[in-house]
Amino acid sequence: MIKIIKVGGNIIDHPDKLKKFIFDFSNLAGQKILIHGGGKLATELGTTLGIETKMIEGKRITDAETLKIVTMVYAGLINKNIVAQLQANQCNALGLTGADLNLIPAQKRNDKNIDWGFVGDVVASEMKPQNIDFLLLNGITPVFCAITHDNQGNLLNTNADTIASVLASTLAKAGHAVSLVYTFEKKGVLTNINDEKSVIKKITPGYYNELKEKNIVHSGMIPKLDNAFKSIGDGVQEVKICMAEDLHDFENAGTSIKLH
Amino acid sequence: MIKIIKVGGNIIDHPDKLKKFIFDFSNLAGQKILIHGGGKLATELGTTLGIETKMIEGKRITDAETLKIVTMVYAGLINKNIVAQLQANQCNALGLTGADLNLIPAQKRNDKNIDWGFVGDVVASEMKPQNIDFLLLNGITPVFCAITHDNQGNLLNTNADTIASVLASTLAKAGHAVSLVYTFEKKGVLTNINDEKSVIKKITPGYYNELKEKNIVHSGMIPKLDNAFKSIGDGVQEVKICMAEDLHDFENAGTSIKLH
Repeated sequence: MIKIIKVGGNIIDHPDKLKKFIFDFSNLAGQKILIHGGGKLATELGTTLGIETKMIEGKRITDAETLKIVTMVYAGLINKNIVAQLQANQCNALGLTGADLNLIPAQKRNDKNIDWGFVGDVVASEMKPQNIDFLLLNGITPVFCAITHDNQGNLLNTNADTIASVLASTLAKAGHAVSLVYTFEKKGVLTNINDEKSVIKKITPGYYNELKEKNIVHSGMIPKLDNAFKSIGDGVQEVKICMAEDLHDFENAGTSIKLH
Repeated sequence: MIKIIKVGGNIIDHPDKLKKFIFDFSNLAGQKILIHGGGKLATELGTTLGIETKMIEGKRITDAETLKIVTMVYAGLINKNIVAQLQANQCNALGLTGADLNLIPAQKRNDKNIDWGFVGDVVASEMKPQNIDFLLLNGITPVFCAITHDNQGNLLNTNADTIASVLASTLAKAGHAVSLVYTFEKKGVLTNINDEKSVIKKITPGYYNELKEKNIVHSGMIPKLDNAFKSIGDGVQEVKICMAEDLHDFENAGTSIKLH
């Protein structure tokens, strides 16, 4: 079972939480991949440099200056500090963007209504699972930040949840047993956002529709769950959504996304 | 023959020159490794952020804030843009720090007289040539920035010339035929710094001493040549010092450093 773990910005922003998370991740047995988000660091650096963060529908518009900042912060500062800490925990980490070894081909988003700038959508059909396999089979733990490329020399800013989902789908379609774990700041998908005890144990497609109709899941949780169901449909055995602090016991924690 | 190429900051600072250099590097046949310097970008970003660059004897003092900046600029911005451009030239590049795969173990510089901060000296005895071999044998072109780690979770700022030399020595000692090429802004080592036609074709150890005594080579060229002779002593077949623009024909360009 290949474990694909996504960790979000709220952990990245807290060195103590990140240290604990890295320890737990290092102790996961078997083949594994880490995908990390960006946290507030990029926004803060942009503000300090006088570069305004432009957001539409919760998504960052990536102009040329913003691309430089996210490349510095995600691919440099965050990614390589995580790699160094994983190595200190005897996890043979390799920090990656999608440009490295052409692991994640993408294309600049083509949207008639909004110019997203240097935002990349993964071209899943061009993903080569054997390249990721090659790393895993050699005891290497890939650590991806959310930067991809267009194979024409341009880096692109890409959603980290989507990268995690595409990696899981690609490996599942190639015949691997894969579990995908989205870790975040809540105990799981909650029926009551103010009650950490209201974790939904399991969501199937039918129940997901019901939760959306009743407005129990909404806003940022929708793309995460859409990604989850996409991966389930592609043959990923299970998708978990759980608290980062529960990573050491993720099988028993949080919300399971399953077909049945 | 494994070709190990170092490119300095003056090329990094000029997008057009860098593009040409990347094209020439991509066209070099056989196994190859690229090591790049940092250019002015890190200093400029530090200035913008109000972080003073402290230098002693031409070497940067790396406090915690400076380490963040060089990690962002070297390992993020520069390294990943080079990787993306190499991929666009069909060169299967992998951007690396010494922390990735623990490829370059280092230790924080221990100097009784000067606190260099987070500056790392490579621990050559702990380098594992088989890890670099593994990448080369699989058609991968490693692209190193000048960041290493102490294997205790800390990144360290390290001289790029030295990294190139240590990589060359490590692979030569493991029995590989290696050539090391330092590219920079001059046509080679010059007898008259104002005359690009005064390139010294070959420097042997005896001639090197003569050049130093006569003060024909001095300042920044001394550590570069010291690194070159260290690698020659370790079994590297040839070290070249030549202009970056001459990379496509480096065998016939610049200055050769040889034992005899």
